[in-house]
Amino acid sequence: MDNTRYVLAGDVGGTNLRIAAVDPAGSVVHHFRSSTPRSGSAADIAAAIGLGAEECIAKTGSSLPVAFGLALPALVNSSAGLVLSSPNLPQLNGLGLSKVIEDRLGFPVLLENDATAAAIGEHWLGSTRTAQNSVFVTLGTGVGGGLILNGQPYRGIDGTAGEIGHICVVPNGIDCGCGSRGCVEQYASGRAIARLATELMSARDSTREFLTSKEVFDAALGGDSNAVEAFRIMGAHLGIALGGLVNVLNPELIAIGGGVANGWEFFIEDVRTAISQHAFAPPAERASVVRATLGEAAGILGAARVAFDIA
Amino acid sequence: MDNTRYVLAGDVGGTNLRIAAVDPAGSVVHHFRSSTPRSGSAADIAAAIGLGAEECIAKTGSSLPVAFGLALPALVNSSAGLVLSSPNLPQLNGLGLSKVIEDRLGFPVLLENDATAAAIGEHWLGSTRTAQNSVFVTLGTGVGGGLILNGQPYRGIDGTAGEIGHICVVPNGIDCGCGSRGCVEQYASGRAIARLATELMSARDSTREFLTSKEVFDAALGGDSNAVEAFRIMGAHLGIALGGLVNVLNPELIAIGGGVANGWEFFIEDVRTAISQHAFAPPAERASVVRATLGEAAGILGAARVAFDIA
Repeated sequence: MDNTRYVLAGDVGGTNLRIAAVDPAGSVVHHFRSSTPRSGSAADIAAAIGLGAEECIAKTGSSLPVAFGLALPALVNSSAGLVLSSPNLPQLNGLGLSKVIEDRLGFPVLLENDATAAAIGEHWLGSTRTAQNSVFVTLGTGVGGGLILNGQPYRGIDGTAGEIGHICVVPNGIDCGCGSRGCVEQYASGRAIARLATELMSARDSTREFLTSKEVFDAALGGDSNAVEAFRIMGAHLGIALGGLVNVLNPELIAIGGGVANGWEFFIEDVRTAISQHAFAPPAERASVVRATLGEAAGILGAARVAFDIA
Repeated sequence: MDNTRYVLAGDVGGTNLRIAAVDPAGSVVHHFRSSTPRSGSAADIAAAIGLGAEECIAKTGSSLPVAFGLALPALVNSSAGLVLSSPNLPQLNGLGLSKVIEDRLGFPVLLENDATAAAIGEHWLGSTRTAQNSVFVTLGTGVGGGLILNGQPYRGIDGTAGEIGHICVVPNGIDCGCGSRGCVEQYASGRAIARLATELMSARDSTREFLTSKEVFDAALGGDSNAVEAFRIMGAHLGIALGGLVNVLNPELIAIGGGVANGWEFFIEDVRTAISQHAFAPPAERASVVRATLGEAAGILGAARVAFDIA
């Protein structure tokens, strides 16, 4: 192994921007963090990414990185280097971001959807390492996903595949930011759990408002029956979407990550029950549902893997 | 090309059994048809398949076929040659059917789900020929499906992938024969259309009962508003399932076949509208929805392709 070979990897969120230099074993050699610029200007975001990249290069050694993998909270056309649609960073919509950053840095920049990047990271170094066919779901502010099929990331024809969070589980259900209604994101994201718990609470005996899934989790730990039930409703809806994926994709593994996965013990039985109710027995019995293991490092490690894969 | 090379291909349904000798160009050299034995005995079905195979070999020439691809209305584990679960031919459940027929004929027998076989046939010689990523849906007595991903049939870890008909589109909806509720098959199959039209009719002004989707189609052609609406409800529900697949798989093409596809003009606009409502715009705009072109030949041609692929 050439120990001087490394890549840059980035994970740009609505709030934080992280860039790392990563070696072929997946170790982070240098890590840069900043806030994502809030100016609403695409040029400011590109500049912040460029700055972080240059710091990582300066701190890492004399050679340039092989390539730069960049995970974004967006539908991306990875082969065209294009941001198609980013609800959280709309200033990037339609931008050929790869080229903008390549022009500054001088080496290839690969865009990847953040949840697909996390799926790739978990497949490289985490929970789905041993599986040929796996579904990764991340439960955060929203619900994202990524697919590994036949041992490779599956991106679809334009690179937008894996949008598990917007499978419809309730026709004419809750309005979703994507423009549809009844998406599983409206029942299984952090925001959704807070809403579900608040609804149960106010329908019963109190007007307490839950603002975050963390509050619901703490209440569930304390035995609050509304909080516990919110997680169960969440699990049942997530299981409907996953049951459909079990029928369609026959995966070996379903890995669940993201902050809401901390409520695991409160929702996982309902997820598994709903999968077994909504999928044929052979694929339902085959698909193990496990927790993702890399935490928030999954996306940046997956972006690094994408960069190594073109080298 | 060696003009003496050929394969056997079979399509065993609940009612009819067809075996063909197929050449490398996809032409049927000899065709055998019989009824599927109704005795409830697996041995009788295997014997009927063997008989049809032997007739095709005798009529085709001096050499043995390269292999035998066999499409079944069942979840199959193709690599193990095993029938996992067949609602219409339950006597085959758990049977290692490949080996039973191989022992009689002396060359390899490959099992394939019938809808996956049809997807492979359409990809080889029909509607999805040009697409790297396509979803095939067959609307018949039930609703089946098959996936071509990255130019190859996608079967999942055990070969059961592609069960599009059992994606849940109505939580706690109509009971389905698969054991679940609210599967798209309960809203978009031939039986479902007859039920939907009958329900609309009896809720309004008449007690007429539709027994088949063909009757509903004829009534729709004649301007019957209940029949027209049944197809629209069908299209909207099918579009919810397909919208989810558009988000998850980002396909270029969705091809719809099966007898119910004859009602195309009555449901396709609602299918397309529901896809655009339930999927992100970039993948929804990318995915063309077209009619399959091979008709009932798709399954047997796909089974032939599977047999050639191992040779």
